[in-house]
Amino acid sequence: MEDMSKLQDELDALNAKITKQGAEVRQMKKDGAAAEKIGEAVNALQALKLEAGTLTEKLKGDEPDFNRKAFDDLIIRKMFVVPSFEIHGGVKGLFDLGPPACGLKAAMIDLWRKHFVLTENMLEMECTCLTPEVVLKTSGHVDRFTDLMVKDPATGECFRADKLLEDAIDDLIEKNPTMPTEEKEDHLRTQRQADAFSPGELDTLLTKYGCKGPSGEAYSPSFPFNLMFKTSIGPEGTSVGFLRPETAQGLFVNFRRLLDANAGKMPFAAAQIGNGFRNEIAPRSGLLRVREFCMGEIEHFVDPNDKSHANFPTVADKVLVLFGRDDQLGSGKTKKISIGEAVKSGLVNNETLGYFMARTQLYMEKIGMNPECLRFRQHLATEMAHYAADCWDLEIKSSYGWVECVGHADRACYDLEVHSKATNTPMVATVKFDKPQEMEVAKLKFDRKALGMVFKKDARTVSAALEALAESWKDFEPIATALEASGKTTVDGFEITKEMVSWEKTMKKVHEAKFTPSVVEPSFGMGRILYSLLEHSFYQRDMDEQRNVMKFNPQVAPQKCAVLPISSNPECNAAVDEIAAELMQSDLATRVDKSTAALGRRYARSDEVGVPFAVTVDFETLTDGTVTIRERDSMVQVRVPKKEVCNVVFDIVHQRTTWEQVTKNYPVVQVDEGDGTPAEKGADARAKTVVEANSRGRFSRPAPKK
Amino acid sequence: MEDMSKLQDELDALNAKITKQGAEVRQMKKDGAAAEKIGEAVNALQALKLEAGTLTEKLKGDEPDFNRKAFDDLIIRKMFVVPSFEIHGGVKGLFDLGPPACGLKAAMIDLWRKHFVLTENMLEMECTCLTPEVVLKTSGHVDRFTDLMVKDPATGECFRADKLLEDAIDDLIEKNPTMPTEEKEDHLRTQRQADAFSPGELDTLLTKYGCKGPSGEAYSPSFPFNLMFKTSIGPEGTSVGFLRPETAQGLFVNFRRLLDANAGKMPFAAAQIGNGFRNEIAPRSGLLRVREFCMGEIEHFVDPNDKSHANFPTVADKVLVLFGRDDQLGSGKTKKISIGEAVKSGLVNNETLGYFMARTQLYMEKIGMNPECLRFRQHLATEMAHYAADCWDLEIKSSYGWVECVGHADRACYDLEVHSKATNTPMVATVKFDKPQEMEVAKLKFDRKALGMVFKKDARTVSAALEALAESWKDFEPIATALEASGKTTVDGFEITKEMVSWEKTMKKVHEAKFTPSVVEPSFGMGRILYSLLEHSFYQRDMDEQRNVMKFNPQVAPQKCAVLPISSNPECNAAVDEIAAELMQSDLATRVDKSTAALGRRYARSDEVGVPFAVTVDFETLTDGTVTIRERDSMVQVRVPKKEVCNVVFDIVHQRTTWEQVTKNYPVVQVDEGDGTPAEKGADARAKTVVEANSRGRFSRPAPKK
Repeated sequence: MEDMSKLQDELDALNAKITKQGAEVRQMKKDGAAAEKIGEAVNALQALKLEAGTLTEKLKGDEPDFNRKAFDDLIIRKMFVVPSFEIHGGVKGLFDLGPPACGLKAAMIDLWRKHFVLTENMLEMECTCLTPEVVLKTSGHVDRFTDLMVKDPATGECFRADKLLEDAIDDLIEKNPTMPTEEKEDHLRTQRQADAFSPGELDTLLTKYGCKGPSGEAYSPSFPFNLMFKTSIGPEGTSVGFLRPETAQGLFVNFRRLLDANAGKMPFAAAQIGNGFRNEIAPRSGLLRVREFCMGEIEHFVDPNDKSHANFPTVADKVLVLFGRDDQLGSGKTKKISIGEAVKSGLVNNETLGYFMARTQLYMEKIGMNPECLRFRQHLATEMAHYAADCWDLEIKSSYGWVECVGHADRACYDLEVHSKATNTPMVATVKFDKPQEMEVAKLKFDRKALGMVFKKDARTVSAALEALAESWKDFEPIATALEASGKTTVDGFEITKEMVSWEKTMKKVHEAKFTPSVVEPSFGMGRILYSLLEHSFYQRDMDEQRNVMKFNPQVAPQKCAVLPISSNPECNAAVDEIAAELMQSDLATRVDKSTAALGRRYARSDEVGVPFAVTVDFETLTDGTVTIRERDSMVQVRVPKKEVCNVVFDIVHQRTTWEQVTKNYPVVQVDEGDGTPAEKGADARAKTVVEANSRGRFSRPAPKK
Repeated sequence: MEDMSKLQDELDALNAKITKQGAEVRQMKKDGAAAEKIGEAVNALQALKLEAGTLTEKLKGDEPDFNRKAFDDLIIRKMFVVPSFEIHGGVKGLFDLGPPACGLKAAMIDLWRKHFVLTENMLEMECTCLTPEVVLKTSGHVDRFTDLMVKDPATGECFRADKLLEDAIDDLIEKNPTMPTEEKEDHLRTQRQADAFSPGELDTLLTKYGCKGPSGEAYSPSFPFNLMFKTSIGPEGTSVGFLRPETAQGLFVNFRRLLDANAGKMPFAAAQIGNGFRNEIAPRSGLLRVREFCMGEIEHFVDPNDKSHANFPTVADKVLVLFGRDDQLGSGKTKKISIGEAVKSGLVNNETLGYFMARTQLYMEKIGMNPECLRFRQHLATEMAHYAADCWDLEIKSSYGWVECVGHADRACYDLEVHSKATNTPMVATVKFDKPQEMEVAKLKFDRKALGMVFKKDARTVSAALEALAESWKDFEPIATALEASGKTTVDGFEITKEMVSWEKTMKKVHEAKFTPSVVEPSFGMGRILYSLLEHSFYQRDMDEQRNVMKFNPQVAPQKCAVLPISSNPECNAAVDEIAAELMQSDLATRVDKSTAALGRRYARSDEVGVPFAVTVDFETLTDGTVTIRERDSMVQVRVPKKEVCNVVFDIVHQRTTWEQVTKNYPVVQVDEGDGTPAEKGADARAKTVVEANSRGRFSRPAPKK
């Protein structure tokens, strides 16, 4: 057997090379490099990936596989997730959540609200999904959220241009099995760059490969297709609207009201939970790439010159798994490091960003995600928008690999600035100084006549723009330099000449400063998190038959308690109803199972939907009023007076006590779920049972493969 | 002063006449009556309405007006609700919920889930908003959710045809001030029927009145415009989708999986909370008619032959205000009657429908709606869909009048049947008999050759349809009669002849029966309920200045507790932080106000957003560790050790104790909020204060005008 750790090192190094090569390809495409050059780089990338694939296969070795078949079967059978509109043939990329997933999602969102919104006094909003074009034009989505499409001019049908090219090449090669290797390679090279061609290049290639529409006519020239769902708002049909592709814009456009609602105080955060929509070309990977999805977004507005966070010390010692830019391009290895250190060393750009990364990690742990399957990956320079200061994705490992589930982006002042500009609305905050500060400013004197002659009605806009810059000499200096050097310069698209304005550098006492806040944006893909949690919660245990268990913790479990009668005797049933009613009264979702199946079978059914506790009414109940409470993962049972059941479950769910404590307060009974005979145990045996049970059920699950 | 109660009787009688006349007009339009006849009926209706308007004005008398200005100002200023995309010019009919409304809505939905879903073990789902055309074609929305539109052929602009006609007539009359009365009346009659004309009639009239598009060209012929937001799903742009106009269809199409998830047991209910979308022509009345709105829908599936409800006895004594069909057309007066009696007397069609009406009433009371502003109005026969068995709307009185907020409809088997037919999917449930039953059935014998020759590939569909009917002689009898009488009949659109099938009436022992369940559908307009609750919660009290209060109960209040220091002394601030942290730790949303405003001013601010309790840290806190807790509506304060604050608030919010009980457990201090001096009071005085305070704050609010 080969040395696994050496192999892992090799693989890590290879992955770093792949990342680097991938970044290069993207940069070349961005720079508009020659198609041939890009092709070569892509080929090199493919070769690296092939090599990595072989290594990964070798490394898989004994790692227990994730049992996808059993998992998928459970998910559908228990109606966690089902394809939408199934009986009508379904729609790709649309899924419905069934009862257990609905309960899970509600609990996840409730915890999200408490963990983020409530604890930090964030301002939560609910904005509309319908969004007018002007807003998404301003944000850049109308122009940049596109793929290239062509139309069959006869039928009006649309196609993705790069996919047509790819298919045409596949066809050509398939129809010519004797094609010389060199010629074939040439076609394949073209195929691999399909998504990198300009519209003109694509049109030429489609003609060259003889691509024709279903009608037999040549395609229209290729044109950009926007991935947003378009609709029309209002009866006239003239007002274009989109379904929002993210929830963030609703918060940005409300910035001024939010700042007012926060009494003008900075920093502060706004938050929103709601649906986003993206018309994905190729929905895939179950719940991971869908067309309608739930997001939770936070926009933390902060002074760009002071990105410290008051609560940072509370998380500074939290250790995270970080996969920094340099490590992705170098060692290929992640680092375990406290967020305090990471910010101090500059690996993570600032305290606010780091604070939210740590809080996200804590949230994931709270809802029951496996901490060993979490890492933060930094965006490479080539991945980030030009305005962004730093970005870290929380990635969760599932059977689909590492999947981006939460973005943490320092988006600088970009969003507020574009909306401010488009609407001519100041979107600034004010910082008051403890004592007045001396500041270098420019004192301007305009030649109003000169301004008016050139700019007419825009003269006031131009002078206001200059005045705004003049508030700080630092901002005005480049204008001054340019005007002195060449006699003219451009401000907000207006060409200013030296005749229009004169200035004087001077000092001014200021009591406050206005600034456009920076935005730090943690953005949660709730659907992806939900799916990952389902995978992380799934395990199988070997009993007489293999049994599926969902180990949701009591806080997120969709149902908190099952109540079962040992027999269909009316007295037993009455006790079951009484206990269930009391649990419901305390808002604890309860599952009653009076079916005639064996008790073990009924426990198994409740395990499958992740109910943490099962209360059984047996014949002892009828004589002494006690029942058993069984914990799902350890299968340990305690005997409790039925009047105390509700308090026990309530207190565990609300984290006022733990199961461990409960096993100390009440006698533990051990039941072999095969035969169902309870057997009282001593304190020592009890302690051992609990520990064993925990190490079996709660902490060890088969790790999903990479 | 006139006798108000006599006037009220007159008005009630008048309103009954209006209802009757309105129903007649609708029926005439439905039956395609002559335009002139309809015009006369509409005129009579207008006259009645005018009379009613005058009476209403008289009746208003001394009833304190709802202070809309103060209310609207508060709603916007405190950011309960703001127009969406305001800085970009906004969009009619779209509103965002700000922080306090978000919290309120989350609490309302949480209570809805607990009150309905959890307590009844309903199967909650979350289906997508994006819906493919076939589903809404099947439900009837594609064909029936329309208004008539015309287009300007040059510009492509669309207009509502009836509105154009109305405007043209207005113009004509305005431009001809000397027009003879008779001629004018003639035009006005046409105008009043604008929405009742057929497309052809409208086209003729638009031409007659010389209506032309903005381009100067004549309009296109009128065509139906669908009120659903249309989009295209998938990259091809060929697959039409809509934003769902209601959430119900997602549940209907999942019926089979839901029934499985319920282990095949009937009856059961599914539920869904989510957004619906309607492209309203004329959004109005603030949050009452918007284009994107939150709904909560329940589909209770039940045996059409047994609509009893197991839990009905738990609500049978609940008294509701019912406005039955006969009373709307007769006395014009509502009835106070227990739901048990209403079902028994046949006023409400069945137990299941009645059960949900009572549960809705209880929910409304739980969230703090004023019970005196709630009534159930039955649909008139002319309002109901042909398949519906009975419908009752919960109407809530606000300053806009009585507004439909929750529909309760017995929709019979319509929905499951249409989807079953469209998809060829059986959507039936099975009822097992305790002992086998003898049943009259038809035993069929087909002439397969005759069937095959006529129906080809559909032969099997036809024979299956006949076999389904043959399962009960009652269902097959009409077919048999028709075939015997005329030798042919139609089944599911296929013409059957006597040669194709022969039959025999016989008895059969059956152990179970299959049936298409009926659906009882309570459908909640959450946005309307939220708006109504805001109005019902608003009141003003006269202090030094008039102060606004939102009297949300502790269960729904967006923030549960305010914490204020009496001075900015660091020790006070530390105690505030400590108490706030403890409250947050218990998931109680807390509002800290350390501003330097006077204490009374800060109480007022927290009253405005409906915080039920305010904890004040004062100088006594620093010596003996006690703080005051002030109840918002009574303004009564108790003095409590600071360590006990969290438990007191937690227990009230979770209904484990009441404020009244708290005033018995802790010493009451009375504070004149003008000067802020606390004054200890004896037990008697305390009791009195509480009663007075309650009768002032909690139970008396200015009733909104009708």
